[in-house]
Formats: sequence, C-alpha cells, structure tokens
Amino acid sequence: MNYKMMGKFIGRILMVEAVFMVPAMLISLWEREFGAVTAFMWSLGAILLAAGGLLWLGRGSQKKFYAREGLACVGLSWIAMSLLGCLPFFLSGVTPNYIDALFEIVSGFTTTGASILPAVEDVPRGILYWRSFSHWLGGMGVLVFLLAISSSGGNGFTMHLLRAESPGPNVGKLVPKMKKTATILYLIYILLTVLDVVFLLLGGMPLFEALCTAFGTVGTGGFGVKNDSIAGYSPYIQNVCTVFMLLCGVNFSCYYLLLVKQVKSVLKDEELRLYLGVALGSILVIVWNLRGFYGTLSETVRHASFQVVTIMTTTGFATTDYELWPGLSKTILLCLMILGASAGSTGGGFKCGRALLVVKSLHRSVRQVVHPQKVEVVRLNGHTVDEKVLQNTNAYLAAYALMTILSFLLISVDGFSITTNLSAVLACFNNIGPGFEAVGPTCNYAAYSSFSKLVLTWDMLAGRLEIFPILILLTRSTWRHR
Amino acid sequence: MNYKMMGKFIGRILMVEAVFMVPAMLISLWEREFGAVTAFMWSLGAILLAAGGLLWLGRGSQKKFYAREGLACVGLSWIAMSLLGCLPFFLSGVTPNYIDALFEIVSGFTTTGASILPAVEDVPRGILYWRSFSHWLGGMGVLVFLLAISSSGGNGFTMHLLRAESPGPNVGKLVPKMKKTATILYLIYILLTVLDVVFLLLGGMPLFEALCTAFGTVGTGGFGVKNDSIAGYSPYIQNVCTVFMLLCGVNFSCYYLLLVKQVKSVLKDEELRLYLGVALGSILVIVWNLRGFYGTLSETVRHASFQVVTIMTTTGFATTDYELWPGLSKTILLCLMILGASAGSTGGGFKCGRALLVVKSLHRSVRQVVHPQKVEVVRLNGHTVDEKVLQNTNAYLAAYALMTILSFLLISVDGFSITTNLSAVLACFNNIGPGFEAVGPTCNYAAYSSFSKLVLTWDMLAGRLEIFPILILLTRSTWRHR
Repeated sequence: MNYKMMGKFIGRILMVEAVFMVPAMLISLWEREFGAVTAFMWSLGAILLAAGGLLWLGRGSQKKFYAREGLACVGLSWIAMSLLGCLPFFLSGVTPNYIDALFEIVSGFTTTGASILPAVEDVPRGILYWRSFSHWLGGMGVLVFLLAISSSGGNGFTMHLLRAESPGPNVGKLVPKMKKTATILYLIYILLTVLDVVFLLLGGMPLFEALCTAFGTVGTGGFGVKNDSIAGYSPYIQNVCTVFMLLCGVNFSCYYLLLVKQVKSVLKDEELRLYLGVALGSILVIVWNLRGFYGTLSETVRHASFQVVTIMTTTGFATTDYELWPGLSKTILLCLMILGASAGSTGGGFKCGRALLVVKSLHRSVRQVVHPQKVEVVRLNGHTVDEKVLQNTNAYLAAYALMTILSFLLISVDGFSITTNLSAVLACFNNIGPGFEAVGPTCNYAAYSSFSKLVLTWDMLAGRLEIFPILILLTRSTWRHR
Repeated sequence: MNYKMMGKFIGRILMVEAVFMVPAMLISLWEREFGAVTAFMWSLGAILLAAGGLLWLGRGSQKKFYAREGLACVGLSWIAMSLLGCLPFFLSGVTPNYIDALFEIVSGFTTTGASILPAVEDVPRGILYWRSFSHWLGGMGVLVFLLAISSSGGNGFTMHLLRAESPGPNVGKLVPKMKKTATILYLIYILLTVLDVVFLLLGGMPLFEALCTAFGTVGTGGFGVKNDSIAGYSPYIQNVCTVFMLLCGVNFSCYYLLLVKQVKSVLKDEELRLYLGVALGSILVIVWNLRGFYGTLSETVRHASFQVVTIMTTTGFATTDYELWPGLSKTILLCLMILGASAGSTGGGFKCGRALLVVKSLHRSVRQVVHPQKVEVVRLNGHTVDEKVLQNTNAYLAAYALMTILSFLLISVDGFSITTNLSAVLACFNNIGPGFEAVGPTCNYAAYSSFSKLVLTWDMLAGRLEIFPILILLTRSTWRHR
C-alpha cells in the first residue's frame, strides 16, 4: 500500500473541509452565537492539525497508485472527514454525546438526513448551516469536487477515485477527459442549487432558510431548519422542493446530453423512463389510496407527490405524517426506499439503473433456460451491456442484501419493533432519513443505543459509497503486503 | 413444445395422485365421515377424468423432450395436482370457498403449512389425513418419487425434471444413474418417516396423530392435527419433533455418504457446518435473550430449539407463541425464514448452500477489486465451483428479491400491517407457514382477500419449485413456436 500518498490525499481533503467550515463559523459570529464560534475554532484547529500531520507524513510520496488504494482512500477520507467534521456539534454542546455528533455529521455527508436532534430550531444557526452544508458537500461527492479543482495525482488515480465515488453502475463517461467531466457535473450541480435558491426566495423564504433548504434538496439530503421539516411552508415552496428533488434524482449525464442538444437520446433513456414512470405510477396509486384522507384533491396530490419524490430521491423531507397513511401507501414508500434514484444522480438507494440491469439479466437467465443453445446479451439503451458490469451488479445486489440483513439483526438488540428496525436500516443504508414507526417522519433516531447508532452510521457510509469502498476496508487482502 | 408428451406426463402424475387419495377416503369410511367420503369420491372421479383425458391426448407422443418442456411440465403438474387435489376440502364443505381450498392444498404440497382453517380438530379425519399426507408427497418432490417407480421418458427427460424438482443449487449426483439416485433418496426419506413414527408412538401418541405429525415433520410441512399444533404434547414428543425436523433439513446426500461410510467428507461439508452452526448459534442467542421468560432453563432451551429448528427447516410447527418473545429473538426467526434449510433437503427457503455461494462469490468480487490481475476461483468443499453455477445462484438471488418485493406490494392492498404482510410473504415464499402479527403462530391466513391468497399461493409454488419452473411459465419465449 502506498500509505504516504494516501496520507497526502486524506490530508488535502481535510484542508478543504476546514475551508468549507469557515462560512459556518462566520454565520455563528454574525449571529453572536459565541459558544458555537468557540466550538468551530477548536474544530478547525483539530482539523488543520490532523491535515498538517497527514500532509507531513505524505511528503515526497511516489505517485504510483492502485485501484485498491484509491478505493481504500475514499472510504478512509469519508471516515476522517466525519470523525473531525462532527466536532462542532460535540464541542458546542448541541449533541453532548460524541457518537450522536458522529451520527449526525455522517448523516449529513452521506445526504441521509437521519437526525438525533429533537428540535432543530433551538440549535445555533452556524451549526445548522454546517449541518445542511454537509449535505451539499456530500451530494455530488466531495472528491469529485476535489478532482475538479485540484490537480493531485495522475490520471489513473483520479479514474480509480471517480469510479468509487460516483453513484451508480456506470460513471457515464460524458467526455473523455476525467477532469472535464467532473467540472461539467459540478457546474450542473451549482446551477441547480442557484435556481433552487432563487425559486425559494421568490416564495418569500428568508435567505438563510432558502440556502439550507436548497442544500438539503439539491444534495438530496433532507436536513431541514424547522422542527416540522417542510410542513409549515406554503404549498408553492413545497412544490418547488418536489420539482428540484425530482430533478436531482435524474442521472446528471442526461443534463449534459441536453446541453449538447442530444434531446432524443435523453427521451429514450431507459433509466430515466423507469425513474419517472415509477414516480408517476406511485403518485397515482397513492392518490387513489388516499382518497378522502385530505380535504381536497390538490392537497392529496401535493402531499403524495412530495412524499413519493422525497423518498424515491432519498431526500427525506416531510410535509405530512405518512405514518398515518393506509398500508398500501406505506408499503409503496418502503419499496421506493429500496429502489432509490437514478445512477449518476445525487440520490442514493439501489438505483433505478441497477434495478433495470438486475431485471434484464434475470430475464436473460430465464430465456437461457428455455433456449440453452442461444447466446443472449443484455441491452441497455440499445447498447450491449458488458458481462463484467452485469457480474458487478449482481455482486452489488448480494452485498446489498447481506448488509441489510446483518444490520437489521444487529440493531434488533435494542428491542424496537420489526418495522422500526427494518425501516431504520433501509432509511440509513439507502440514505433517506426518516423510516416508519419509532423512526417515522415525526420522530428521530435518538432512542437507539450507541451501538445501534454506530451500525447505522456504518450503513449510511456504505450506502453512500456504494458498499465496495467500505467492504474492502474490511478485507484482509487489502492490507496484506504485496 | 411437445404438448403430447407433456399431457401424457401430467396425466400420469394425476393418476398417482388419485392412488394416494384412496387411503384418505378409506379413513373417512372407517370413521363413518360419509360427507367426506362422498367428497373424496367426486374428487377421485374428477381427477381420473382429467388424467384419462390427458393420457388420451398424449397417446403416441414422441419422446424428444427439451429442458424448457421439462421445467414447464413440473410447474404445470404441480398446478394441475393442486387444482384437483383441493377438491376434497371444497366438496366436503370444510372450506366453502374454492380459493381457500386451493390455498390449503398448495400449502400442503409445497410443505408450507400455512392454513386458513381456524380449528382443525373439527375437520373430518380423512380430510386431515389427506392434508398432512400432501406434505409428505410434496416433501421429497412428487416427481422424484415418480421417477423412481415409473419408467416414463428417456434419460435426458428425467435429468431435466430432476434438475427442476430437487431443491438446492446442486442436485448432488450421488450415483451416476438418475433412477438409482431417486430410489436412494426416497429410501432415506421413508426410513426417516418410519423412525419418526416409531419414536412418536413410543411417546404415547395415537397412531393417526403419529402418522400425520410424521408427515408434517419429515416433509418439513407443518400442518398439525391439533388446534394448538404441537404445544399440547409432552416435552419428549416436542423434542422428537425437533430432532427429526433438524435431520430432514440436512442435505440428503450426507446420509448417502454416511451409508457408504464416507464420514470424513460429511464432517467437512461446509453447508452442513453452516446449517448446524447457524441453528446452534441462534438457539444460544435466543436462550440468552429469553432469560426469565420461561420458568426453567430446560423449558427455555426446549422452546428455543424447537422454534429455531421449525423455522429454519421451514416446517412451521409451534410449541409456544413466539410473537410474545423480545425483538431480537423475533428478528432472528425472521432472518432464519429467509435462510432456510440445506439444499437437497426437504426444507425450503433460500438454502444454506446457496447463501454460502453468494457470500463466497461476493468475497471473490471484493478480492478482485483489490487485485484485478489475479484470477480468483470460488471453492466449496475443496472443489472449484463452476462459474455457471455462481451465475445461476446470483440470478436466483435476483429472482428471489424481486418476487418478495412484488408480492409484498401486491398483498399490501389488504391493509394489514407492514410486519404482517412482509412475514406472510416470507412465510409462504420460503414454505414455512406461520409469520408474525396477524399471521403469527396462533393466527391463520383466513383474513386475507382472495386476491392476496392467490398471490401467496403463487409464492408457495414458486418457492417450492425454486422459482424458475414457475417463471418460465410466464415467459413469452417458452410458448413461442420454435
């Protein structure tokens, strides 16, 4: 293992984290939240110290870097960022327990939005800003961002990193050059954020709330700045959120294709069709299922579409307590938690594109039983899918199922109901946030034991990094001397 | 498609079903249950008529038979057997609704043991016998049995059938000749049944009850003849059941290896170790979790081991209401429902052997990320596993996950709780029987709508036949003219 290079890389990331923490501290200073300011200053000191140490250790490193080192680096830097990034919560006394603070910041960086805070309105605004901003950082992958602005490492290195970082089965090589790809993705991301803020401001939302809400929306995170999430805002603002969440659950390469005027291939994109089709179908069934539940049809449609989109894009805002909805609607939401958003979007979950490949590959297996002599290929958007990709997708499904079952077993020690535990695991692993029953939209994760919180923290990280960068940290052969 | 041959084959199976129905009718005659006798007579008439018609249609068929025809045959004959085999329930008025009768007999043939009957002690004994005997017929696969006693079809044909019928990823070719294999498996099965009956009789159980209980135990079915399942019997009888359920969840090829004195390879069998290890581990954790729940330690151990074994082998008897157990114990049982028994046993579920292959194949994928140049193979019991087998195992996992989610969505229309619906699907699809909450060990499936019962019936069949023979019935290319 090229430990020096890994140290250098993680050190750089921590430097970036420190830079991004400064605005939050300034907000606390402006709002005269001096306790929070002190907490931020100590945190910054700790981060800079760690970063400096790592950079010093990594000086003069050779540039040769392998896939396993890239993947391990991704996992380790998210862990390092979280271990230090949670310090403002802990030192300011917002979460007196360090495990709680860690849970909260991992929930932020992984764009999960699961919280242990009972009432966010009492929290200093600088801390709230940092909490929401962590979604935005995590949303597009801090490292893709880093790649775009820094020039560290060779080309092979960035390739490995991007493969680990970008959500979904195919990175979707928009343009041959990796750095240019990252820049384009990032510009789209910023554009969406700015548009969202503008539309929220037009609805009369104060700037601070608009910024935090946009971070939570565009990063598909779900941390809000109000105790009732989005429920207290006007229908206009709720609808703006629905639209932007839906937009951020689309594979970002579709936007690139639109920019270069390849409208036709966007319209024919099978994943996009599945994503929008499932969203629309779910909304229709839930509207039918909810008849008579709300006063008017328009209110029903608004809540149904908001909840479907917020769960499917794995954001996790709430406008209503869906816990009170009938069984069918709740079950649809539970299944959407698993499916998730599109590959190459800021959303989490199993991903529509991956589900498409699993179904197609299964259909191929059945056809092969029927006609064993015939060679059958799997096609996506008219192109033959590489067997290696199909194999990886199936391995991902196995890892996904095993992680879910194992976490479900581990947190059941706390004695909550089966539905609570199962939905807690699904909501964390798929980076959604709220689940059902004791972790429903009006509740939070505070009641779980520290052990369960660590399990769920691990799930959030594994879900966000698409499991493998976390799994290889646990494999002996990664650390064995070659 | 060789429809003639298929007709002939299904006709023969129905003839055998008719023969096996006669003892049940004689019991009703002996017990002077004349309503049931009439029902059996009409049922026999219908079965013989259908069988005769099919045999007449299939006369003079050519023997050429392909895999898809074999698989389709298996699916169709189970469906035909069930559609006609449920007639005694329906015609005797035990279940006035035909869908209920169908649910009950499919639950029998698939060795599920999920029931819609509220009180079995009121049911005529001939009907009860037929109900329990259906487990025994289904247990080892009616068709494996048929293969052993009849000489229909060529060798390729029996090969295809056995592949579809035998549970588990590998049929485990005990001896080269297929017919001899079936005979050996069948003799082991009969031996276990006889031993079970003897041990139950020694515990003072009446012959009728001992026979029915043994059918339910050795077939890993779970239909009882008492309203409280096995709870009212003595600890000795409960322990006998535990032991025999455990024995019938072992891969039957292990018994063959013992017969030919290859004790060493049995002791080293990885699936057997996993199966026994998981059972033992689960029992220990549940005994710890249940401390203080029952009066004595021995009572705790008895209930814990009975429940773990009955769920893991997918039998589904009950000695206690595990619904009242703490969350951890219930979650363990829920996970055992998914894991199931060993491949090549009479039990259902995902199967230990298959789970082993999924984990090993995932571990290989992770190692391949770490060392992309190295060629890695998956080994089981010291032998390299064929890539085709691994691919099929992963396809099975995909089919398993999709079927579970789809059925869960479909039956949620009825409005039961998430835990009820999820456990109902798992209990039926994995051929266990009782689930949690509204379908818990003291409840039954009567409250579900006919639509949901049909979905669950379909799940039982798909689970028992390892999905593919049922899936190919739904694939266009199966029926397309070649």
